[in-house]
Amino acid sequence: MAEESQRDAVVLVSGGLDSATTLAIARDGGYRCHAMSFDYGQRHRFELEASRRVAESLGAVEHRVVTIDLSAAGGFGRNALTDEIAVPKDRSAETMADGIPPTYVPARNTMFLSFALGYAEVIGAFDIFIGVNAVDYSGYPDCRPPFIQCFERLANLATAAGAEGRGMFHIHAPLISMRKGQIIRTGTDLGVDYGMTHSCYDPDGHGRACGHCDACALRLGGFRDVGLTDPAAYVDAAEG
Amino acid sequence: MAEESQRDAVVLVSGGLDSATTLAIARDGGYRCHAMSFDYGQRHRFELEASRRVAESLGAVEHRVVTIDLSAAGGFGRNALTDEIAVPKDRSAETMADGIPPTYVPARNTMFLSFALGYAEVIGAFDIFIGVNAVDYSGYPDCRPPFIQCFERLANLATAAGAEGRGMFHIHAPLISMRKGQIIRTGTDLGVDYGMTHSCYDPDGHGRACGHCDACALRLGGFRDVGLTDPAAYVDAAEG
Repeated sequence: MAEESQRDAVVLVSGGLDSATTLAIARDGGYRCHAMSFDYGQRHRFELEASRRVAESLGAVEHRVVTIDLSAAGGFGRNALTDEIAVPKDRSAETMADGIPPTYVPARNTMFLSFALGYAEVIGAFDIFIGVNAVDYSGYPDCRPPFIQCFERLANLATAAGAEGRGMFHIHAPLISMRKGQIIRTGTDLGVDYGMTHSCYDPDGHGRACGHCDACALRLGGFRDVGLTDPAAYVDAAEG
Repeated sequence: MAEESQRDAVVLVSGGLDSATTLAIARDGGYRCHAMSFDYGQRHRFELEASRRVAESLGAVEHRVVTIDLSAAGGFGRNALTDEIAVPKDRSAETMADGIPPTYVPARNTMFLSFALGYAEVIGAFDIFIGVNAVDYSGYPDCRPPFIQCFERLANLATAAGAEGRGMFHIHAPLISMRKGQIIRTGTDLGVDYGMTHSCYDPDGHGRACGHCDACALRLGGFRDVGLTDPAAYVDAAEG
């Protein structure tokens, strides 16, 4: 695709499997991708390193990391992703689908999309990509289609670019109704190296995945479903 | 009002006239107010000192300051509130009402409300107060009623508390259809000391207001309309 015909997009990149696939899809759709990540004191900081590798390897034109210091706001409550609360392990798919897990961070996707929106407006982009998934979604309310649709409406009301009719913001959630296996198949076809991605909620000191938290369970199940081997490093080498 | 019958509310407090009045209204409505402010590299940092004074004097149960470092994201573009761009001066009411001024910060209220929402969910509050005003609103898109209504809908979709039906989030914007004079009259009746508040976009090194930017013009006009004297310090002492 010719350089001048490309549109800019802001792509939220956590360094995980879903957001890496989303970035690959956005690039494949012809967008010049501006990757954005957040340093918000998450316990699994290997995510941030993974996000840098993912952004670079998938041709993002830049990678912006926004630092949010919530310590003065009590770290926004205790949850298993920012605090020393036990990450649940070896939960069945039924248990995962039933209710909101302790890894839920209040209003996280609302905050992340707000920053993506502000940055999009600054660079003149109207397309924002987020790798939320409502199927194998582990119970987060801000991963569902009505949330995404409502944020899209908000984006057009909230901004000068929207209010002045310079364009229509579109929140792309290309994975929202895919199963994990489909996501992995799609990304593999688009050349994503999943060995670069980090999904585990509870990695060891070398960044190796635990293989037992919800994120690992969903990921390993997805690779199994499509008959592929997860190239990521696991504490127990037999996992991948 | 008895302590146990009070509900918690998160109140966005910038240190300006509008948010001080909003905090007074929330307190008068019987809420236990959790004040929240942001340090986002704004040029007029006297706001943050003012927010502390305002929160304390109006009986907030706490004051949380969230730090957002946007430097890695290009400071979210250049605008007259965070950069060395000239703040417009001595604009007529007609000019102010016509279009979005250079003091607009992309998606600012969306970001601020997102943090208020996250904190509200953590403390179990369902009420969020913001001092936006759509009448003398200086042209910001994210100060209009449809934006507030849409964010309220989003809040109930975005959160575990909303998704699980533990309560309904309500975004209160009590000033939204008031003229500046009405706001000042309301706050004065509720005991707000406007000498503590800071509105100017371009104060001098001592925090004294310029008297000529849009914020000063609206504020001074409001005091004139209700026949009161602005107790704030101005560079030209004749202003207030």
